[in-house]
Amino acid sequence: MPEKAIIAVDALGGDNAPDVVLDGVAQALAADADLTVILCGPDEVVTPFAAAHERCVAQPCTEAISMGEHPAQAVRKKKDSSIVVGCRLVKEGAAQGFFSAGSTGACLAAATLVMGRAKGVARPALATVIPSPVRPVVMCDVGANADCKPEYLVQFARMGSVYAQKMLGIESPRVALLNIGEEEEKGSQFAQEAHKLMREKVPNFAGNAEGGDVLAATFDVFVTDGFTGNVCLKTIEGTSKVLFKTLKGIMMGSLSAKLGALALKGGLTELKTQVSADTYGGAPLLGVKGACIVGHGSSSALAVRNGVLVSARQVREGVSELIAQTASAS
Amino acid sequence: MPEKAIIAVDALGGDNAPDVVLDGVAQALAADADLTVILCGPDEVVTPFAAAHERCVAQPCTEAISMGEHPAQAVRKKKDSSIVVGCRLVKEGAAQGFFSAGSTGACLAAATLVMGRAKGVARPALATVIPSPVRPVVMCDVGANADCKPEYLVQFARMGSVYAQKMLGIESPRVALLNIGEEEEKGSQFAQEAHKLMREKVPNFAGNAEGGDVLAATFDVFVTDGFTGNVCLKTIEGTSKVLFKTLKGIMMGSLSAKLGALALKGGLTELKTQVSADTYGGAPLLGVKGACIVGHGSSSALAVRNGVLVSARQVREGVSELIAQTASAS
Repeated sequence: MPEKAIIAVDALGGDNAPDVVLDGVAQALAADADLTVILCGPDEVVTPFAAAHERCVAQPCTEAISMGEHPAQAVRKKKDSSIVVGCRLVKEGAAQGFFSAGSTGACLAAATLVMGRAKGVARPALATVIPSPVRPVVMCDVGANADCKPEYLVQFARMGSVYAQKMLGIESPRVALLNIGEEEEKGSQFAQEAHKLMREKVPNFAGNAEGGDVLAATFDVFVTDGFTGNVCLKTIEGTSKVLFKTLKGIMMGSLSAKLGALALKGGLTELKTQVSADTYGGAPLLGVKGACIVGHGSSSALAVRNGVLVSARQVREGVSELIAQTASAS
Repeated sequence: MPEKAIIAVDALGGDNAPDVVLDGVAQALAADADLTVILCGPDEVVTPFAAAHERCVAQPCTEAISMGEHPAQAVRKKKDSSIVVGCRLVKEGAAQGFFSAGSTGACLAAATLVMGRAKGVARPALATVIPSPVRPVVMCDVGANADCKPEYLVQFARMGSVYAQKMLGIESPRVALLNIGEEEEKGSQFAQEAHKLMREKVPNFAGNAEGGDVLAATFDVFVTDGFTGNVCLKTIEGTSKVLFKTLKGIMMGSLSAKLGALALKGGLTELKTQVSADTYGGAPLLGVKGACIVGHGSSSALAVRNGVLVSARQVREGVSELIAQTASAS
């Protein structure tokens, strides 16, 4: 039997909040009988929902942080926003994890400022599970730290490895540095220094990877600065989107194509599910004291459901605690 | 009637040289009656081929630069290698352009050292046409300069714009900076400074782009440092490759799927051609005195054919001269 898990959820996160969030939370509660959700948002939204759902507690808040606001400023100013309140619930021990499909920047700022960094972690990093049809892989950082020092990447490698072990069940994850050539002397000054440090300090370091290796799942964990990682992640998502859209056009192009497409429907639906970001529900911020998962702004109810369930699993697997142990031991 | 064009070709470039190169050159000569090729390589390879083909001149060389060699050292040492000789033919005016599917680094080093930088160009940059099913777009730099100063990107924007105008026929190309958010304050310190400079100095600058915008062709020219550009390019190629391979697996999965796939074959073949790097034959090095196009190491004969033809078109369109004018005027 899984342990109980208590996850704070931002009812206002995402382009289609609160409806999609409420729908996703209801699905998550139905899927996991040991899950409790503390729903943070306007009283008129969260109180009736909590009253109508078992294991859901309302946490009314009076403020909201929108996508356009300056993250750190908004977090400092809006102490009663759903994002800040959700992180505070984790800090105070009322919840063990926090999920939001709202402003990534505000979630990162709130988690870092309110939950706090794990001891020994210089920079918390945003990781993500890249949904590859080969097998899922982890990339870290995908946007929390646009400017990095090479030594941060050593920590990203360790945190990403813990995540791959615990959440993907890969016992000995092979870690690669995202670079522009296989040879160790390849890449920018930064990449060369990061390679050297990782070679020294990351026992499961397997060398340089290139952009094409990510979806091909040549390695298990791809380590990079948040700028390159974000470009790479969005390039994968955008490339898949354009190719699927073009494919759809081809399949609708004629009657015979439509009939042909019918025969492939099962396989294609499976592939679309495999490569959909919705399957993994969000990106975990690693290196803070508690679980914090940030979903896409465009999250569907399914993505919210999965994001909440992944948050609960991350809590049960003790990912944050293990990262803190690893960081303070090194 | 197109003007005559003389292109030096490295017979030793690529994983399947010289056979694939000779095949591609023969196809290019057949396709363009005003093209002359000077074929650089071992006497026993180039002399019989030139004897058997009209408008092909042999340029025997005694040395070869392999993929694994240190580019700049190899170029300095091997004065009689096919790459150095090809670039020297351009420098001396015997040829107007050079094509190789060999070591990218060696081609860049040879073109820069032997042909020389165009006046006013701080750093020549490797551009590429990204084959999108929406419409082709230009990305620059995709790997010549892993470390950049923000001001280089202003030049990449200008050079990329000239290339889009002349080679893709886009009269007023919209230039974007590859970044990790649309807002101008987004991104690394480097990206923020580059954004500010481009805003000031590039009249056709249209703002920030994200990784997903490249294949979606949201803009015409994507400007970036060579590290990020290379990761992005290889991510697009690798993502397409994995998705096509998975799709093929689905189509071969059952008899009904095989039959269904038959009805889609025409459309899928067209899509594969559209997104194939072979269609554009290679990446031009912009900002040197002459045309220099570098093909993929895995170039097929078709890719070599297209690379040679694109080199000839670049010569006829006067791309290098226009870039030199633009650079020295600014």
